[in-house]
Amino acid sequence: MAKELTPRAENYSQWYNDLVVKADLAEQSPVRGCMVIKPYGYAIWEKMQAELDRRFKETGHVNAYFPLLIPKSFLSREAEHVEGFAKECAVVTHYRLKTNETGDGVVVDPEAKLEEELIVRPTSETIIWNTYKGWIHSYRDLPILCNQWANVMRWEMRTRPFLRTAEFLWQEGHTAHETREEAEAEAQKMLHVYGDFAENVMAVPVIKGVKSETERFAGAVDTYTIEALMQDGKALQSGTSHFLGQNFAKAFDAQFQNREGGMDYVWATSWGVSTRLMGALIMTHSDDNGLVLPPKLAPIQVVIVPIFKGDDQKNAIAEKLDPIIKELKSKGISVKYDDDSQKRPGFKFAEYELKGIPVRLCMGARDLENGTIEVARRDNLTKESINLTDTVSYVEKLLVDIQANMLKKALDFRNASIKTVDTYEEFKTEIEKGGFILAHWDGTAETEALIKEETKATIRCVPFDSYIAGDKEPGKCMVTGKPSKCRVLFARSY
Amino acid sequence: MAKELTPRAENYSQWYNDLVVKADLAEQSPVRGCMVIKPYGYAIWEKMQAELDRRFKETGHVNAYFPLLIPKSFLSREAEHVEGFAKECAVVTHYRLKTNETGDGVVVDPEAKLEEELIVRPTSETIIWNTYKGWIHSYRDLPILCNQWANVMRWEMRTRPFLRTAEFLWQEGHTAHETREEAEAEAQKMLHVYGDFAENVMAVPVIKGVKSETERFAGAVDTYTIEALMQDGKALQSGTSHFLGQNFAKAFDAQFQNREGGMDYVWATSWGVSTRLMGALIMTHSDDNGLVLPPKLAPIQVVIVPIFKGDDQKNAIAEKLDPIIKELKSKGISVKYDDDSQKRPGFKFAEYELKGIPVRLCMGARDLENGTIEVARRDNLTKESINLTDTVSYVEKLLVDIQANMLKKALDFRNASIKTVDTYEEFKTEIEKGGFILAHWDGTAETEALIKEETKATIRCVPFDSYIAGDKEPGKCMVTGKPSKCRVLFARSY
Repeated sequence: MAKELTPRAENYSQWYNDLVVKADLAEQSPVRGCMVIKPYGYAIWEKMQAELDRRFKETGHVNAYFPLLIPKSFLSREAEHVEGFAKECAVVTHYRLKTNETGDGVVVDPEAKLEEELIVRPTSETIIWNTYKGWIHSYRDLPILCNQWANVMRWEMRTRPFLRTAEFLWQEGHTAHETREEAEAEAQKMLHVYGDFAENVMAVPVIKGVKSETERFAGAVDTYTIEALMQDGKALQSGTSHFLGQNFAKAFDAQFQNREGGMDYVWATSWGVSTRLMGALIMTHSDDNGLVLPPKLAPIQVVIVPIFKGDDQKNAIAEKLDPIIKELKSKGISVKYDDDSQKRPGFKFAEYELKGIPVRLCMGARDLENGTIEVARRDNLTKESINLTDTVSYVEKLLVDIQANMLKKALDFRNASIKTVDTYEEFKTEIEKGGFILAHWDGTAETEALIKEETKATIRCVPFDSYIAGDKEPGKCMVTGKPSKCRVLFARSY
Repeated sequence: MAKELTPRAENYSQWYNDLVVKADLAEQSPVRGCMVIKPYGYAIWEKMQAELDRRFKETGHVNAYFPLLIPKSFLSREAEHVEGFAKECAVVTHYRLKTNETGDGVVVDPEAKLEEELIVRPTSETIIWNTYKGWIHSYRDLPILCNQWANVMRWEMRTRPFLRTAEFLWQEGHTAHETREEAEAEAQKMLHVYGDFAENVMAVPVIKGVKSETERFAGAVDTYTIEALMQDGKALQSGTSHFLGQNFAKAFDAQFQNREGGMDYVWATSWGVSTRLMGALIMTHSDDNGLVLPPKLAPIQVVIVPIFKGDDQKNAIAEKLDPIIKELKSKGISVKYDDDSQKRPGFKFAEYELKGIPVRLCMGARDLENGTIEVARRDNLTKESINLTDTVSYVEKLLVDIQANMLKKALDFRNASIKTVDTYEEFKTEIEKGGFILAHWDGTAETEALIKEETKATIRCVPFDSYIAGDKEPGKCMVTGKPSKCRVLFARSY
């Protein structure tokens, strides 16, 4: 059928692209590198947003909105920031169009040139710190704990839907603190919020840790990250939280009167996750039949397909199911009842598998006779017949089971994909197989660059936790033999 | 005190600007015409969004996301659309910056010039219809009922916070239909959703009607509008819904196979409200003491200020109030308990009045003795002492009362501000006094333009409903004496 996906084993990358389009998640737009997020994809993103937003508010944050456009000069205020990544961006140079000479189109009006060019925000540290400067006078004005839900734009050369797009949707938290300790604690706290969200909502296990200097956010003192492992053995950086020190406060002269009456620069953090999480979700769970969604993010959690001949059977089944649907809904479970007689049941089954609906219920003439219903779960593709009267309690429990099972399955895969190696030769062999590798590194950017050049592997992070016995003990760099404090996490990545 | 506002009677415009800044709603940004929406202002907008989004979904709509940037050529596809308003917009011409010669700043890289310029969306009909074209093949693909929450940009020359800003936040619904009737019904349905929201959530009474051809959205066949009246007698267009006919479908060649097997162009609507609603909210209800918020949109509905000397009193009051706060919260009422001993109660009262908190509770030593509590309502500034034990039920009812009272007050003012006039002389006198005027008009753009030029008044709409006896009866144009079908609504406007 037209909806068939390229199998993962054949071409993982093509499978991903097929799935994004065929499951109606997103599509390319006529603007290079920008995607249209279709209603079904957007409904999943909305569920992510709601869960994240709740967690941000529970940890004391408020939302605000800052301008889309940033004066060009702001970008060069923090030297490392502009050096690091602010160059590939959309530049607004004019503010008016006019009708062309032939009267059938528009051209840029050369009279309407901006004095200073404006940049479509690639991230908002600069404009926000220029604003915070006016909000902060004394320690009493601190902390500031703001988050922004916004679109941002980075002119990436090679783009892929959700994973790397010129425009993407994200949230960016920007906080201001009185002390270094408080800011560091905030940056770590938000990383844990991301980790909790990834594991308990997305069912995506992540390794939390700190980035090497090379991989750090441009302008940060420390970058914390959550790293997930995709089914093809590549890592996906899924969220980052930055301790910015006083770098942006100094660049924008944001000082405050401290408790002793002196003046200090403000301490800062920023942290963000984006629609890239959709990529993590897809590539962690989905299979050759399509999307597999954890119940907590599924726009439709349960689909019910009646199989009938003629209106009498149709009505008899509907009558039986109506109270069950009502009860499921009353428990906050989202249910779709699909009695469309234009489409065959097999077609519907394939469609709902493609869309990743966690639970499918199916009732036919024999079920009607026997007082049973068929329950199919999307995560492991098993089916079972149960008593109709048990449906609600069964489904309620099943949704919890599926959520847990998806995390367990992904965690088992991830854990089985963490290896340790001690020699660079071994590293070169193992990295070809995919997965995470814990290895010793001498801590220098030179060795890191060499490894990247020779193997395409990067240091994903220095993990906070221990994953394999002894990985926190000192050793010798696999490349140079110089001393290493602990093993660090390598992988090829998206 | 520093927070004092310019009185409305002295300078209404300055009062508005003062209020926006001093109540922490928004502030100017360094980017011309773009504002920073501060957390308190954004929290109100979030409540509006949630209420609107729920209504959109209840009427069968889903959210999606389309690109920020639109290829320049798209804008000229629908001739009236580009002629009407798409010219004053931010134009992206380059996609890269580079370090300047002195190495201390960035300049636009002339090598990175786009082949075709991109426009920051002023509205999304063009990019969306270019997309819908691919989604629609047969009548079975219809209707499409999408909404988008997004930022848009129009390079306005004179800007005012919320009312007219270069960048603003909004939602834009874009729907596609099989028949003219269905599309027209959709456009009207969504106008009624806006009207219901304005009146029942914002407590802002609106007049619903259809725009004259001159005031119509560029590219629409009909534009429906909700018009509110501000305290200074000027009208504010608060939301519009457009029946677009087949104009955009023709411009983007979006055809579908109809039920008879032939090909038809798709029928379309679009509809939007924006952060401009914040301006309507402020200018309908607020007073010289600050913001007045309807309970349904107040981020904090109830503030409680204990008045105490020493920790014993502080603790005794807290102990009494703690169960009341818990009970209020359990009923979904948002409560702030402010026992900050650094600030005087009078300072707090002024601050919460400025912020428009609907209900203020205050408990002091005497209340503690008598088992009473003082209740102050923001809408009419009255105070009352009640039994402490009655607090929860009293407050619950009071919030409903305040919501209703605010609508009634605004409605009484609005209704008292609708006049009829029969001569143009009378019109010229009355329009100076502010308010709506129902008058006869000959239906020509020439007369409309003359009236606008001579009086600065525009036709706000041809109202659906009757507001003054006989206003739906035919008559003679006040300017030309030519026949008129019914009275139309004039006002000076924002």
